[in-house]
Amino acid sequence: MSKAKKARLSDRSSGEFFPGIPTIQYKPDAKPTDVICFRYYNHDEVVFGKPMRDWLRFSVCFWHSFRGVGLDPFGFGTIERPWDDGSESLENAERRMRAAFEFLTKLGVDFWTFHDRDISPEGKTLEETNANLDVMTDLAKQLMEETGIKLLWNTCNLFTNPRYMNGALTNPDAHVVAYAAAQVKKGLEVGKKLGAGNFVFWGGREGYQSLLNTNVLTELSNMASVFKMAVAHKKKIGFKGQLLIEPKPKEPTRHQYDYDAMTVIGFLKHFGLANDFKLNIEPNHTTLAGHQYHHDVMMASIFGMLGSVDSNTGSPDLGWDTDQFPMDISHATQTMKVILEQGGLQPGGLNFDAKVRRESTDLQDIFIAHIGAMDTFARGLRNAAKIMEDGYLGKMLSDRYSSFNGGLGLKIAKGSATLEDCEEFIKQEGNPKKTSGQQEKYEAVLNRYV
Amino acid sequence: MSKAKKARLSDRSSGEFFPGIPTIQYKPDAKPTDVICFRYYNHDEVVFGKPMRDWLRFSVCFWHSFRGVGLDPFGFGTIERPWDDGSESLENAERRMRAAFEFLTKLGVDFWTFHDRDISPEGKTLEETNANLDVMTDLAKQLMEETGIKLLWNTCNLFTNPRYMNGALTNPDAHVVAYAAAQVKKGLEVGKKLGAGNFVFWGGREGYQSLLNTNVLTELSNMASVFKMAVAHKKKIGFKGQLLIEPKPKEPTRHQYDYDAMTVIGFLKHFGLANDFKLNIEPNHTTLAGHQYHHDVMMASIFGMLGSVDSNTGSPDLGWDTDQFPMDISHATQTMKVILEQGGLQPGGLNFDAKVRRESTDLQDIFIAHIGAMDTFARGLRNAAKIMEDGYLGKMLSDRYSSFNGGLGLKIAKGSATLEDCEEFIKQEGNPKKTSGQQEKYEAVLNRYV
Amino acid sequence: MSKAKKARLSDRSSGEFFPGIPTIQYKPDAKPTDVICFRYYNHDEVVFGKPMRDWLRFSVCFWHSFRGVGLDPFGFGTIERPWDDGSESLENAERRMRAAFEFLTKLGVDFWTFHDRDISPEGKTLEETNANLDVMTDLAKQLMEETGIKLLWNTCNLFTNPRYMNGALTNPDAHVVAYAAAQVKKGLEVGKKLGAGNFVFWGGREGYQSLLNTNVLTELSNMASVFKMAVAHKKKIGFKGQLLIEPKPKEPTRHQYDYDAMTVIGFLKHFGLANDFKLNIEPNHTTLAGHQYHHDVMMASIFGMLGSVDSNTGSPDLGWDTDQFPMDISHATQTMKVILEQGGLQPGGLNFDAKVRRESTDLQDIFIAHIGAMDTFARGLRNAAKIMEDGYLGKMLSDRYSSFNGGLGLKIAKGSATLEDCEEFIKQEGNPKKTSGQQEKYEAVLNRYV
Amino acid sequence: MSKAKKARLSDRSSGEFFPGIPTIQYKPDAKPTDVICFRYYNHDEVVFGKPMRDWLRFSVCFWHSFRGVGLDPFGFGTIERPWDDGSESLENAERRMRAAFEFLTKLGVDFWTFHDRDISPEGKTLEETNANLDVMTDLAKQLMEETGIKLLWNTCNLFTNPRYMNGALTNPDAHVVAYAAAQVKKGLEVGKKLGAGNFVFWGGREGYQSLLNTNVLTELSNMASVFKMAVAHKKKIGFKGQLLIEPKPKEPTRHQYDYDAMTVIGFLKHFGLANDFKLNIEPNHTTLAGHQYHHDVMMASIFGMLGSVDSNTGSPDLGWDTDQFPMDISHATQTMKVILEQGGLQPGGLNFDAKVRRESTDLQDIFIAHIGAMDTFARGLRNAAKIMEDGYLGKMLSDRYSSFNGGLGLKIAKGSATLEDCEEFIKQEGNPKKTSGQQEKYEAVLNRYV
Repeated sequence: MSKAKKARLSDRSSGEFFPGIPTIQYKPDAKPTDVICFRYYNHDEVVFGKPMRDWLRFSVCFWHSFRGVGLDPFGFGTIERPWDDGSESLENAERRMRAAFEFLTKLGVDFWTFHDRDISPEGKTLEETNANLDVMTDLAKQLMEETGIKLLWNTCNLFTNPRYMNGALTNPDAHVVAYAAAQVKKGLEVGKKLGAGNFVFWGGREGYQSLLNTNVLTELSNMASVFKMAVAHKKKIGFKGQLLIEPKPKEPTRHQYDYDAMTVIGFLKHFGLANDFKLNIEPNHTTLAGHQYHHDVMMASIFGMLGSVDSNTGSPDLGWDTDQFPMDISHATQTMKVILEQGGLQPGGLNFDAKVRRESTDLQDIFIAHIGAMDTFARGLRNAAKIMEDGYLGKMLSDRYSSFNGGLGLKIAKGSATLEDCEEFIKQEGNPKKTSGQQEKYEAVLNRYV
Repeated sequence: MSKAKKARLSDRSSGEFFPGIPTIQYKPDAKPTDVICFRYYNHDEVVFGKPMRDWLRFSVCFWHSFRGVGLDPFGFGTIERPWDDGSESLENAERRMRAAFEFLTKLGVDFWTFHDRDISPEGKTLEETNANLDVMTDLAKQLMEETGIKLLWNTCNLFTNPRYMNGALTNPDAHVVAYAAAQVKKGLEVGKKLGAGNFVFWGGREGYQSLLNTNVLTELSNMASVFKMAVAHKKKIGFKGQLLIEPKPKEPTRHQYDYDAMTVIGFLKHFGLANDFKLNIEPNHTTLAGHQYHHDVMMASIFGMLGSVDSNTGSPDLGWDTDQFPMDISHATQTMKVILEQGGLQPGGLNFDAKVRRESTDLQDIFIAHIGAMDTFARGLRNAAKIMEDGYLGKMLSDRYSSFNGGLGLKIAKGSATLEDCEEFIKQEGNPKKTSGQQEKYEAVLNRYV
Repeated sequence: MSKAKKARLSDRSSGEFFPGIPTIQYKPDAKPTDVICFRYYNHDEVVFGKPMRDWLRFSVCFWHSFRGVGLDPFGFGTIERPWDDGSESLENAERRMRAAFEFLTKLGVDFWTFHDRDISPEGKTLEETNANLDVMTDLAKQLMEETGIKLLWNTCNLFTNPRYMNGALTNPDAHVVAYAAAQVKKGLEVGKKLGAGNFVFWGGREGYQSLLNTNVLTELSNMASVFKMAVAHKKKIGFKGQLLIEPKPKEPTRHQYDYDAMTVIGFLKHFGLANDFKLNIEPNHTTLAGHQYHHDVMMASIFGMLGSVDSNTGSPDLGWDTDQFPMDISHATQTMKVILEQGGLQPGGLNFDAKVRRESTDLQDIFIAHIGAMDTFARGLRNAAKIMEDGYLGKMLSDRYSSFNGGLGLKIAKGSATLEDCEEFIKQEGNPKKTSGQQEKYEAVLNRYV
Repeated sequence: MSKAKKARLSDRSSGEFFPGIPTIQYKPDAKPTDVICFRYYNHDEVVFGKPMRDWLRFSVCFWHSFRGVGLDPFGFGTIERPWDDGSESLENAERRMRAAFEFLTKLGVDFWTFHDRDISPEGKTLEETNANLDVMTDLAKQLMEETGIKLLWNTCNLFTNPRYMNGALTNPDAHVVAYAAAQVKKGLEVGKKLGAGNFVFWGGREGYQSLLNTNVLTELSNMASVFKMAVAHKKKIGFKGQLLIEPKPKEPTRHQYDYDAMTVIGFLKHFGLANDFKLNIEPNHTTLAGHQYHHDVMMASIFGMLGSVDSNTGSPDLGWDTDQFPMDISHATQTMKVILEQGGLQPGGLNFDAKVRRESTDLQDIFIAHIGAMDTFARGLRNAAKIMEDGYLGKMLSDRYSSFNGGLGLKIAKGSATLEDCEEFIKQEGNPKKTSGQQEKYEAVLNRYV
């Protein structure tokens, strides 16, 4: 580390990490290039019966904004932060965490999220690693109390370390599975210590690269075993957070076992775990699985399994996870409509699992990016609230299904009809009429709100 | 219809439909351009303990080869058959069916499959339609008895008629759902009449084009209701065939509810239907869902849900269903390996849900295509049998998972370990070792068999 | 044809085809469900120096709205029009055309487009077919004069007839190529007769299904030969319209030769045709080629090759052409920005190569769909005009490239620098500085206009 | 560096890097698990008139096998080599290079390839970097002379260093473009020094992440300027190697300017560069661009632009570049058929731009992987040679196009026909006949060779 860099670092320890950036204000009349303010997000404004902050429950993830360096498969890191000397020391970890809390406070969000290994360096042994984590979670606890910021969820990083290259909970070597399970144990305890609303499993290495060298059934069964251990341990220690699984179809493995919402629901039901888990849906994963943006948010919601949302986006023409900040107003509107319809996300929230592009190397870019995304979802909320208040789209939809409100339709809906009943009905009533689906009308009406 | 065409048709009624095409023979020494014979498929040769025909259980589908005309979204039909006058008369339907049985016999397959509306014209009312179906299934029964060919499965076409444009079992209009249910009732009765081994549901219109005009939960619940009615009716009439659902991710709808194997398994388990249904996997649908060729065959198999296979392929660079004849030896080998491992497909089979390309307008093209596909799977069977007999790949795989045969590994596998056990083990044993996944070695060994 | 249907048809001949639908009005205060009016499109309002109609040059295509019946690969047609008896008679063709001109007039667009075979039935011989076309283009000419509606472009359908199944200009049989060329001859003459602004080639069958049976070089050379004949014939007859090629990557063939904008530009330059052709870009084809929505519009524009736009959209999660009506405000804004930057599209325009969904069977659905799309592009135009008037985004962009305005940068830009100059510069000036790409800032600023 | 590691390193300097691995032998009777020998590749065996080594011209790339550590976007490196201490010292670089030449020699390939920054550490200034490169290329020259191994091509890494994050030749900052140009200058000089057969440009950062912040025309023009400088410099210094551009559609950028073969051909022709460049085709890039495996190999070949092949593969269900070792016999056969048809690849070759999977951490995995791939292409060569010797497929194809050998067909082919000629022909000859495309027959015949 150069002297100049050391000097800058010491400046930070006693002062601001983001000098010149104020607490972000709501300025509804800001001009287009004023991007360090909210144009639509107004924390405490009541929309559809609740303050915006309570519908949106924005959360910043530690990993992308405070550990991301812009590394990609074809290039070295590009992003340098004045407070980060690149070392794996606890001292450096503490500076990062203090910087993060300044960021969270200035941005005005209520929640954060982290992986265990983001906030705390790994030691030579599990014991040493856990001791580091104790130090760092002590600091986190203190900073959370000082700022009022809460932990939306924590999670274990079970994918970065080479030991997990062939899987963590699904590794062909029981020794590795045991290591991962031990790490999960500590993760749940950290969740309890910090009052996390949820605990997330993202199975980054749970999948296969080749069917030739993989026994899928063994791997899925072992994963289910560890999930059951986690449920038991959670109860034992009295951790109240909701357990969540985050689906993703592929990347880093060729096939991830938690492919999409329905795949995970099938897995959970098969192994008797459906009452203990919900889903953390990330739309960039949904689109990689071949669905539209808010498909899995909707699927999880109607099955009563939508726990939280990793609010980000990808580029539909790309086949990998870019974790970009969500900027599409129409997507945000349709996503928020699902969330309003289920009465909100609590104890989940909208976590920005999003990173500035590798080329966005200015310190203020992480502010601009989060603000732009928050404004996008604030517009989505305002639009969705108006749609629900007006009730036009809701009425069009309920009319469309009104034949199930009585007669044979009601019997079908209730499951009390037989095939004979149906045949008899057709013999009496003849062929059904053709009814327009009116998709373009629905789209045109939606556009009046976007 | 021109006089010349009429004359040709009458010739057919008393003679061969495929003059000049012999019963297809096994000729292991045929030269490359001799494509009207089998080079690898030898019906009664015993491979891995059974005649090839009993492992492969080849089936020809009626719709593609006897109703397909080469229509595509950008062009009129191209394929004309001398026996088909294009009319919807019963007379024409009978000629088609007789032609089909000549084809099946000459080709030397043991099974066929059909949709209700393929073999029999639709009338103005359901009663009239069902009466036509009675006539045609009488003929089918007679021809099956004469030739010894059996019905692998039948199914209802719930997607072609405009009445189903917004869904059949999932239509927003209960009247349409009732119509579809009545059609299913008849379908099950036809299955019983013809001794079908299975009955398939493919939900061609069960899905959504737009989330804006769709209540997904209502639609899924109604679909489950009709499935339950089908289970009840099957028992009532004493039909012994296995009920199958065929997954497909998209097309014709934007999202098909039966997206892939795990999605259907999740649906079945949620609605309490998992004991009454298995899956009919079509690899062209599997690849459209973003998986590799034999992924869903494997997933269904390990969950005990693989009932039958619609043996076809697509082009991996295309985003729609081309239903091409399967010609890839490596894919066939890996698929047959899964089938051998589960002890065969009975009462299912390998049904060629495949059509000659729109440009393959010669009568002999349907022979060449089926023969090429049968030889491909015959090679796949021979390769897979050799792999299993040699045991090298199997040994490599079981060695890879041997740590679960005892100690903590066995406790994890059995579900009797706790997170504390795992933590304790790591404290004792330390960090795990890194073990190569050896994917390229597995691939190189496989290639020695292909 | 039933008597009732005949009666309805005769009503039409003396009356309105769309009774109850008024000429569409601009109502800026319409409520959300008022979808039979424009909320944003105001024909003669001047935006960025020109009436909206002159920037947008909206055009309706005859094929989708007046020949489309909702056929898809899995189902029969669903869409029936009261004036259309389904026959291939000239009488029926005339009613369709009159209905179309009532539609165009009520909708208030200035242009239409058609394929030769859409407006006029095919006869047994080319002569008979051309005679029919003469009748129908006489009527078209009369209706165009009466209504003031102009022909944006016409084109030849070289893909629907079975004769073209293996290609039209690229068929392996010279007889078919000759037939296609003769059809193109008549198409150019029709373009001249009706004063078409452009003539379009869409190579629906120009591509391959399999490389095994295809000589790509021969096929491309033959296509170029016919293009050269077309250029020569155009000059000979004095047709002034711009020749356009419409790229598409795949569907119906596995690989279409006119894959995307750059592929076509490469082809044209290789065969010496680049001065005689421009491109007709369809965004639904652009996204199927793996690019983002307005990529090819932009690529064609910067190479001076953007002739016209087939304004539609697909679903990014689908792999085939759905030709949906464009409803995305952000896409429309970015597309219109490119068009404003090149000074407009004349003699091209925005042609709605879009069809109502197969399920949108009400007569008014085609009004609602076109209005929704026109409003979307009207919003796009208004947004893009504001962006250009404000100049913020333009200034950000020109600043980003300012180093090419002088010094070595200018020499590089002009092509007068050498590698030695560059090496020398670095030896003097050292390593370059890192500059943020600020993508999120650009996105956030754009969102202030959407 | 630990003492133990140092000890191991010093062992290497005086001994073997791959102890226990022999020079790889041809053993046609090897059993399936004998994967450290060739089963099909027999260097000097004459096939289709030339030794196999001269058709195949296998090359190993330095970057994947000697610099790859298994880093991926979700995980740290996994691959450690005993000779590599992870430092950026020249001493370490020398050990790596010596290990590589032992590998090349034992494997028995005739060529290698490298990026400048792979073989030599970057210094603080360009001068220092170039001085390091001089040292390392001196060693390379010596080792090449000792072993007889030749340089297929070298290239400049213009994508890893953060300075290139916004582009190298297409950077918005002229300073960066100058730096890249200076690096290219040195690269050409290195190519000359080592007698490279070719010099490759892969534009890893030449593309855009967002159209909003990009002036595409400026960037393309600047890239063309530097290419022209390279042509001039090559002539000036007397470097005889062929300049090659390697297309890739996306990754790392959202859109790479060198999207696919036809895009690059269009670019080269537009900027007057087509005579000075050919293409280096990588099939994993071809499939990412939406084409089938050997499409771009074929397209480049028929345009006379196929210079070399980066022989690898991806998984068709994945949307990113996995650079796997090619193991598909049918793909290899069809690729080799194109290469045989154009008379070979010289001065290009088959370069294994392929890496062992991140999980293949054993030292012998890189041998197994290369051997498996070489055997795959050796089988491809043997199959393709047999196809060409038999001539069946060739005859089927030439018959299909025989109508262009005389009459109007020949006039069309030569470009001397007019549209009037074609119309006249149709008036005389009437409608063309329908001819089957026989795709399944071609596929079945091909399978007889695979």
